[in-house]
Amino acid sequence: MTNQTAAMLVIGDEILSGRTRDSNMHHLAQQLTGHGIELLEVRVVADDPLAIARAVNALRGAYDHVFTSGGIGPTHDDITADAIAAAFGVPIGHRADAMDLLGAHYARQGLDFNDARQRMARIPDGARLIDNPVSVAPGFSVENVHVMAGVPRIFEAMLAGVLSQIAHGKPLLSRNLRLLRGEGEIATAFGNFAAEYPDLAMGSYPFNQDGVFGTNLVLRGEDATRLDVALAALSDLLAK
Amino acid sequence: MTNQTAAMLVIGDEILSGRTRDSNMHHLAQQLTGHGIELLEVRVVADDPLAIARAVNALRGAYDHVFTSGGIGPTHDDITADAIAAAFGVPIGHRADAMDLLGAHYARQGLDFNDARQRMARIPDGARLIDNPVSVAPGFSVENVHVMAGVPRIFEAMLAGVLSQIAHGKPLLSRNLRLLRGEGEIATAFGNFAAEYPDLAMGSYPFNQDGVFGTNLVLRGEDATRLDVALAALSDLLAK
Repeated sequence: MTNQTAAMLVIGDEILSGRTRDSNMHHLAQQLTGHGIELLEVRVVADDPLAIARAVNALRGAYDHVFTSGGIGPTHDDITADAIAAAFGVPIGHRADAMDLLGAHYARQGLDFNDARQRMARIPDGARLIDNPVSVAPGFSVENVHVMAGVPRIFEAMLAGVLSQIAHGKPLLSRNLRLLRGEGEIATAFGNFAAEYPDLAMGSYPFNQDGVFGTNLVLRGEDATRLDVALAALSDLLAK
Repeated sequence: MTNQTAAMLVIGDEILSGRTRDSNMHHLAQQLTGHGIELLEVRVVADDPLAIARAVNALRGAYDHVFTSGGIGPTHDDITADAIAAAFGVPIGHRADAMDLLGAHYARQGLDFNDARQRMARIPDGARLIDNPVSVAPGFSVENVHVMAGVPRIFEAMLAGVLSQIAHGKPLLSRNLRLLRGEGEIATAFGNFAAEYPDLAMGSYPFNQDGVFGTNLVLRGEDATRLDVALAALSDLLAK
């Protein structure tokens, strides 16, 4: 069975302006790799309904899953839910179960369940809610698009819920060979070596830390034994 | 004059697998904001020639500048230069001035200028070289696409060179109002306030740090005086 594929859509002016450093992409990448789902593309777009809808429509047709982050809060710049509804061509309104969840949450806190807070119950028709164990306001999935909050703690909690419910592949494993040699010195041998293992993905990543130069050679695949055999052979070839 | 627009294309399996945390996007975002160039989209794609070429062609038609990072080293997984040549439909070969730069560099170090190292002199026809003050191997620009290394120190040095040569707009400035109030409490008032300043972009970013909850309200624009006036008014409205 071929692994499922995925894309991510990060929504937020604050990332593109450099105000905030996105951390959800790295978290999602690690989680998907661990769950055997291949992340093949990420896009970051501004808080622009048309840009969001276009990107969602391009990605949901090309990959098995699309994970979005950002823009589902109560303020005027939170436009993701409406943009997703527009992308799918479905109506959006205050949904009863989401209103109940949020109403009970604010009642417990003695806070007014005002118009702005009620906005977080606006969900495209036909969506499934994504549980938010951190701050209650739910995310949602429409078909293969999973719409989650941008705040990392909430994004991570929502993602855990989504991943528990979708089919997993075999985790993608990796092995690393750290060499204190430059890429240019080992590139030809490494390229020839990689060609002998067409079932493994191999990449070369130069580093320069505290004046120490070298190269990390990374082998990726699904079979631990096969990776260990390849790593030993590569080490014999280049690390002697 | 309207500010110029830009997109970024990050090339690298290592980002999508979660092995490496990209930092070039955040650096580019901050630099472009400071130079008055609007970063409107980022894409991250795998080490896949077709994916790279498609993304480059989509972005270079839609924005004034495209900045790429990654995939221009000497190893077999460094395929960016060929993918860019394919995207533009131009030939690629070992270029004399790049060969001279690299040949002299390796001669100085007493290292063999082997085939792998010579690969870094493969440049699409018609490109302009981008100086690499860190490790010599150049980046290049084809029309409005600026192709740079993925190693952060090299990316940053190459970017400084490119930015010194392209037209700048007015830097986008920002002001921040930090409130110890939830978004849901101030959302309606903030939305109405934002509607009174259509020339400024306003965003709301909740935070939860060490048990302290609150909201950062961010105002963005090109005119410092106008921003200060708006910030004072917003502070009177919400921070009293």
